[in-house]
Amino acid sequence: MEEKFKILFLPDDKEFEVTAGISVLQAAGMAGVELDGPCGGNGTCGKCRVRVMKEQGGAQWALACKTIIDRDMTVEIPQLEVSVHRKNELTLADLNVQIDSGISAKVVTVSKPSLENQHPDAKRFLIAMDNDTLELGTEVLRALPKTVRDKEAKGMVTAILCGNKVLAVEAGDTSQRLYGIAVDIGTTSVVVALMDLRSGETVAIASAGNPQTTFGADVIARIEHVMNNEDGLEVLNRRVIKTINRLTEKLAQDIGITPMEIYQMTMVGNTTMSHLFMKIDPTYLAVSPFIPVVSERVWFEARELNIEIAPQAPVYVTPSVAGYVGGDTIGVIMSTDIYQKKGIYLAIDIGTNGELVLSRDGEMASCSTAAGPAFEGAQIKFGMRAADGAIEKVTILENGEVEIGVIGNQPPKGICGSGLMDVVSEMARAGVIDSTGRLCTAENPGDLPPALQKRLGSNEEYGPYFILSFAEDNMGEEVVLTQKDVRELQLAKAALAAGIQVLLQHFNLSAQDLDEVLLAGAFGSYINKYSALGIGLLPAIDANKINSVGNAAGTGARMELISQEIRQEAEKVARRVEHLELSTRADFQEYFINCLSF
Amino acid sequence: MEEKFKILFLPDDKEFEVTAGISVLQAAGMAGVELDGPCGGNGTCGKCRVRVMKEQGGAQWALACKTIIDRDMTVEIPQLEVSVHRKNELTLADLNVQIDSGISAKVVTVSKPSLENQHPDAKRFLIAMDNDTLELGTEVLRALPKTVRDKEAKGMVTAILCGNKVLAVEAGDTSQRLYGIAVDIGTTSVVVALMDLRSGETVAIASAGNPQTTFGADVIARIEHVMNNEDGLEVLNRRVIKTINRLTEKLAQDIGITPMEIYQMTMVGNTTMSHLFMKIDPTYLAVSPFIPVVSERVWFEARELNIEIAPQAPVYVTPSVAGYVGGDTIGVIMSTDIYQKKGIYLAIDIGTNGELVLSRDGEMASCSTAAGPAFEGAQIKFGMRAADGAIEKVTILENGEVEIGVIGNQPPKGICGSGLMDVVSEMARAGVIDSTGRLCTAENPGDLPPALQKRLGSNEEYGPYFILSFAEDNMGEEVVLTQKDVRELQLAKAALAAGIQVLLQHFNLSAQDLDEVLLAGAFGSYINKYSALGIGLLPAIDANKINSVGNAAGTGARMELISQEIRQEAEKVARRVEHLELSTRADFQEYFINCLSF
Repeated sequence: MEEKFKILFLPDDKEFEVTAGISVLQAAGMAGVELDGPCGGNGTCGKCRVRVMKEQGGAQWALACKTIIDRDMTVEIPQLEVSVHRKNELTLADLNVQIDSGISAKVVTVSKPSLENQHPDAKRFLIAMDNDTLELGTEVLRALPKTVRDKEAKGMVTAILCGNKVLAVEAGDTSQRLYGIAVDIGTTSVVVALMDLRSGETVAIASAGNPQTTFGADVIARIEHVMNNEDGLEVLNRRVIKTINRLTEKLAQDIGITPMEIYQMTMVGNTTMSHLFMKIDPTYLAVSPFIPVVSERVWFEARELNIEIAPQAPVYVTPSVAGYVGGDTIGVIMSTDIYQKKGIYLAIDIGTNGELVLSRDGEMASCSTAAGPAFEGAQIKFGMRAADGAIEKVTILENGEVEIGVIGNQPPKGICGSGLMDVVSEMARAGVIDSTGRLCTAENPGDLPPALQKRLGSNEEYGPYFILSFAEDNMGEEVVLTQKDVRELQLAKAALAAGIQVLLQHFNLSAQDLDEVLLAGAFGSYINKYSALGIGLLPAIDANKINSVGNAAGTGARMELISQEIRQEAEKVARRVEHLELSTRADFQEYFINCLSF
Repeated sequence: MEEKFKILFLPDDKEFEVTAGISVLQAAGMAGVELDGPCGGNGTCGKCRVRVMKEQGGAQWALACKTIIDRDMTVEIPQLEVSVHRKNELTLADLNVQIDSGISAKVVTVSKPSLENQHPDAKRFLIAMDNDTLELGTEVLRALPKTVRDKEAKGMVTAILCGNKVLAVEAGDTSQRLYGIAVDIGTTSVVVALMDLRSGETVAIASAGNPQTTFGADVIARIEHVMNNEDGLEVLNRRVIKTINRLTEKLAQDIGITPMEIYQMTMVGNTTMSHLFMKIDPTYLAVSPFIPVVSERVWFEARELNIEIAPQAPVYVTPSVAGYVGGDTIGVIMSTDIYQKKGIYLAIDIGTNGELVLSRDGEMASCSTAAGPAFEGAQIKFGMRAADGAIEKVTILENGEVEIGVIGNQPPKGICGSGLMDVVSEMARAGVIDSTGRLCTAENPGDLPPALQKRLGSNEEYGPYFILSFAEDNMGEEVVLTQKDVRELQLAKAALAAGIQVLLQHFNLSAQDLDEVLLAGAFGSYINKYSALGIGLLPAIDANKINSVGNAAGTGARMELISQEIRQEAEKVARRVEHLELSTRADFQEYFINCLSF
């Protein structure tokens, strides 16, 4: 018989019995405990760090994927970091949208029943509403008897309406409390914006990592998880829904409302994220011919998706263009206004995939490239999110000295996407890598200054590498960039640059014709555009034409939330964008090879 | 500290820990184990009989309500008796209805995706359907990818449609399998009819006791349970839903389909049953001014109610007239056709309540009387359902001999509703009770023949009683009718008779004006109309005008299931019926007192 051990996960207090020999990360997966492991248990990403309790008291940090269960254990999972920003901390520009969310409140007084007025509650309510064609859903009928009999409200009832449907009824006048959430599900993080549906203001925003990451860093890994596990779709769906609920609850708490006062939700995300959100099998997105199940906009009720807001609140899933050009791209198009502006615009949303849209006077084409998670610091030896301790800026001085900027001014622990692009750009400029991307080695340092030569190293684990930060210099850990890291970035930037070329070619344009390049996504906000130009990620154009537009996909979701018109436009736009499938194009292959060099 | 014991319920295999001193019935309630206890734990109804396992092996029958837990116990609950009748055993007349259920099937072939045809599954499906305005719900979207890729079906898909909505998609041509269920939720039993929506035929019918009975025999007791228990509504709802699911599964199994091939459901029941079915608080039905939450027809999706048929199948809850004149009465009106027939008709649905409708050329009025469960054998000392061993017929011969008819020709165990009415009618005729309902006693036997005198008895437990069946005569138990039993029936019949008087008076009619009296309900089928006339339950009219119409409420549900027109008519009828609230009428009190005598 196989040996069994008990493992207790904190702070969930979940106990699970496992067969000896599996890792803590695997056990967490089986127990349904959320734990990040984007590298797939290779011990390379360091994101599955947990605290293993010692028998004699105290605890010790360890990688869950490398900790094999050989006894009864208690393991503490560091909690999902949720960051919340209130309105006064947000620097969001007001949305330039006519407010018309489709949700409204009406306050009426429902008559008291008596032996002379034996009308049912529903009937007396409809009489008060002066409209007996209104639809009352399950939840409204269930809430009605208590609501109309509330002692303090004395028959006063607030009805929340969406078209001809009553979404909710509340005792008293609560018409001042009318909220919605706009949700942006990224492959690596989830952002929820709480909005006042009356004023259109964004009241607060909360974000956290996407806990699906445990099952792989990119969309392909997630889809593979669904293909290979009977409960894969269920688990991935549950995780993201749980995160949305947790963020929403946090936001509601923060401003003193209940999640039940949230009556509408809009959602943007890439096609895989949308499918997983809807619990729809994304399998066929991953295999040629890359077919989504649905790309038209979909309306759900919140309860169908287990979203814990008003149960009958409509949930709007933004339409998408094609397999890899999803609702997030539609969000970018809507918020940048390029679908109706005169001029030639290139919008780039860089995440784990790179989605590109080129618009010429509102005529649009799109494509998607497997930019890869390199841009987000994943699959990079010392890659990490843009958090405290991440190297985000790198300059190599004339004399070979390396200056680094670290988030939070702390000892460096790793490197994030923008730092990565900086360092590769600087290494190319300084000759630490040649135009083919090959790293100089200590044995073959070319004519590098000594200050750079001493940073070259090689060992069995890393292969050839470049030391970004010496442990002794910065009171931190040694942080290096390996040859393999450079290759990851090189492949990603070549794919993106080739995609841009295909789009330009499609319109018979050259890079110089572009009026503006819009960089969307969190990464777009942090990127040093000179580095991006330096490594050839962006075509050689005037740097002044390159602008970051922040979380444009999320902004699109916020606009959709407060405007029926924007939603209707988004549906038209989704049908209008021409999609170029790169995987079958010979010209893409050609451009890709040409774009590989630095 | 209180002593705790473990109780294991079979066959559910549910273990539950309880504090010493509570009864097995109470423990079953807490553990969520279904167990009948209509008398509320008084030990009088005998319906909570369970098998208590002995430590030394073997088992022993005991009343759960009278068995106090004083040790760890294993208790076996006799299983819900489900009876199923297949089409060839059913004696139902074909429904005289144009078949137009609103549900249809369409078979199409969905194109294969390719790099040249990258349309999403949903789009290709809608193209095949030649209608891109169709609504695809969650479940359809979730089922679509597998369905269109089914190896054997080669793209052939059957779409189940309800108006503009696609309810389900299935691989291959399944258009021949289109089913629905018509459900009649009675206070004491639940009947599910499985129908072929194409032919309109009733394929099979299954019935079982309503397991809510554990919480009280009549609707008032059920409502009180909801009022007094936080999870009362939840529990009563869950029980009836579970029973419907179990019956439906049984029916589906029986004819070789899956419950997922059932695409529509209609439901009739009294107002309390409808509220509990919808999980809507029925509290205000029980207190003056007797207000339902909703009486209009309601449409749900099956999944909203946890009904385990096609998740998005529409579920139609029949409208009701007033607090105590529910969808079951509408069902009776629809199936007897009295809403549109010329003539004067009185329909009586006798269950735990008595619902009355009088129609004069389609002009209708209704009222409801607390007929009480006496007519169903509850709250009667030896009362039982019309099952094997129940005395259903009683005749007192000239010489004082008593002849009884027992269901299943078995030794008598108790008396059912029809037997009860027979015996009281016969006792009144033979002078065993006087016109005020008082029972002769052994001390004061009047001029009864000796054969009757020897049947008179009295003891501390029963009070005065009449022996229906001697233990030695029939190899069974002694079955008696007590003075209290006579009173129960007397009150019930007076209420019903007085209700009839009020209705007649309302139309300025006398009993002689009636063209027909229609007796609905299972009880109506078994009743001896001469006995009903004999005790004054029915007004003195020609017995030929009194006809049983069987389970007319259930027939109404079946008609609604296969006809949109009948559903529309039902909604109009529900608004047209005038409701007379008896509780406030002085004339009702007057009639009631006059109708008490035999």
